Amino acid sequence: MRLRLTPRDTTFFDLFAASAQHLVTGANLLSEMLGATPAARKEINKRISEAEHLADEATHQIMRRLNQTFVTPFDRDDIYMLASALDDCMDFMDEAADLMVLYKVGELPARVADQVQVLQRCAELTAEAMPRLRSMDSLSEYWVEVNRLENQADKTFRKLLAQMFDEISDPILLLKFKEIVEALEEAADAFEKVANAVETIAVKES
Amino acid sequence: MRLRLTPRDTTFFDLFAASAQHLVTGANLLSEMLGATPAARKEINKRISEAEHLADEATHQIMRRLNQTFVTPFDRDDIYMLASALDDCMDFMDEAADLMVLYKVGELPARVADQVQVLQRCAELTAEAMPRLRSMDSLSEYWVEVNRLENQADKTFRKLLAQMFDEISDPILLLKFKEIVEALEEAADAFEKVANAVETIAVKES
Amino acid sequence: MRLRLTPRDTTFFDLFAASAQHLVTGANLLSEMLGATPAARKEINKRISEAEHLADEATHQIMRRLNQTFVTPFDRDDIYMLASALDDCMDFMDEAADLMVLYKVGELPARVADQVQVLQRCAELTAEAMPRLRSMDSLSEYWVEVNRLENQADKTFRKLLAQMFDEISDPILLLKFKEIVEALEEAADAFEKVANAVETIAVKES
Repeated sequence: MRLRLTPRDTTFFDLFAASAQHLVTGANLLSEMLGATPAARKEINKRISEAEHLADEATHQIMRRLNQTFVTPFDRDDIYMLASALDDCMDFMDEAADLMVLYKVGELPARVADQVQVLQRCAELTAEAMPRLRSMDSLSEYWVEVNRLENQADKTFRKLLAQMFDEISDPILLLKFKEIVEALEEAADAFEKVANAVETIAVKES
Repeated sequence: MRLRLTPRDTTFFDLFAASAQHLVTGANLLSEMLGATPAARKEINKRISEAEHLADEATHQIMRRLNQTFVTPFDRDDIYMLASALDDCMDFMDEAADLMVLYKVGELPARVADQVQVLQRCAELTAEAMPRLRSMDSLSEYWVEVNRLENQADKTFRKLLAQMFDEISDPILLLKFKEIVEALEEAADAFEKVANAVETIAVKES
Repeated sequence: MRLRLTPRDTTFFDLFAASAQHLVTGANLLSEMLGATPAARKEINKRISEAEHLADEATHQIMRRLNQTFVTPFDRDDIYMLASALDDCMDFMDEAADLMVLYKVGELPARVADQVQVLQRCAELTAEAMPRLRSMDSLSEYWVEVNRLENQADKTFRKLLAQMFDEISDPILLLKFKEIVEALEEAADAFEKVANAVETIAVKES
């Protein structure tokens, strides 16, 4: 345990928690989108973009505070890493949603729902974990589980990719689907980066 | 305003300004390239590669100085971030130019010209802003405008992508165009990263 | 030469050397894979994944040590940069191998063998260089040669890309090959990042 010579700036914890809440909103909207009609998808996509804007603001607040605060609760680099990883989660989910609307795709392969389900679970776990950064309370369960989920998502992604290349003969449709599932895979990777950033912070604190 | 106990190394400012000048050259050549004949494109591409090499050298000089200088004008990380973002701008413009020649593409969709125009404007603004790092004079207009331009570029890019998927039935031609417009979009993103790095530096100085 | 007020933690050198050894294994297996039958490729791919897991563990050990060690032999950021670049080399080679199996591709274009040969050479040079971090002995030959090899790999990659777009009329096969050669190109880039990280460290030490 390192000596603390100064009071810690607590608002970072609240900003991280807020940022993670937007991820839960985004992931849930993404899962709604899958079963929705083209018209409904457009409308849901708008709401995801709103969540993305809010997450963006949260990130900017964190960065601004980080640059103006002399003493931070953790290493600046770790706060930066955590904030940008949280931002990436949202960006990739937003991108996937945009592409679904942009490419006017119909029903997506069944495994896409599995990808999104993992993102929903990762978002919930992340939102629950962020407030615990203050007390460093039982964070290991969180990052272990997110790493497990990301490995699962990776397997699903590769199976899905192989399946699409086997079954879809229209190369343009294949291209569209491929970009969407790749964006979802990148979102899962970003959740793992968040978990790794939290682990880094926790290890330094221990 | 932080205390300055040591004289600042000013040459970083000159190196950043030089690096940004190459971006103006590159962006202008890129716009020339769009309307040019295949033969002319080859020749213009060579000149873009030359600009890229010069930018590369500028980056290397900055990194070398950064590693050998004990006192830097700003945080080392910010100098590093700024230098590599400037480098990325050039790399992505160079990649787009290479792909145009490599894929022997003919006339590109009209919106590509809009993408390149944004890059030219971003390059000019960046070249004008770099020397102002010394005085920190009116930099906010710069980063606000670049962020605005990047949002505009993003909208153009998405419209262009949707249009290409609607109108181009040859999947291989679609693939070629897609990679070129994606490289141009990445260049716009890199210009935004440059602006964000400048904002970070300015906020710390204020 | 900076003053050293504390003994240096030497185990980082051993961890880097171990990590680089897995890259040699991975690159050699990758080259075996090219000429192999589909069945053999599956089996070789398993062994590449094992090498990837070992490399992953090495990276985790480095990060863990980095976060728990108060005095590190070099700047923390440089150790972090070096460790993640080494990790990327393996990930991209592993990805290329996975895609070969996943996409059930047959014989690959001849130039792919040239790409893999460069990766083998880069891996050997890197494995030889890592132990020399301790003494900082003749590292410049290493990073100069890796940079030369990466430029060569880049030229090969672009020629290969152009050739594939010229000669392959099946867009789905083109997509499969494209992803594989792109993963190999990213692996070469990662080896260059490793060399750049070593150069950064050496410059600071000199």
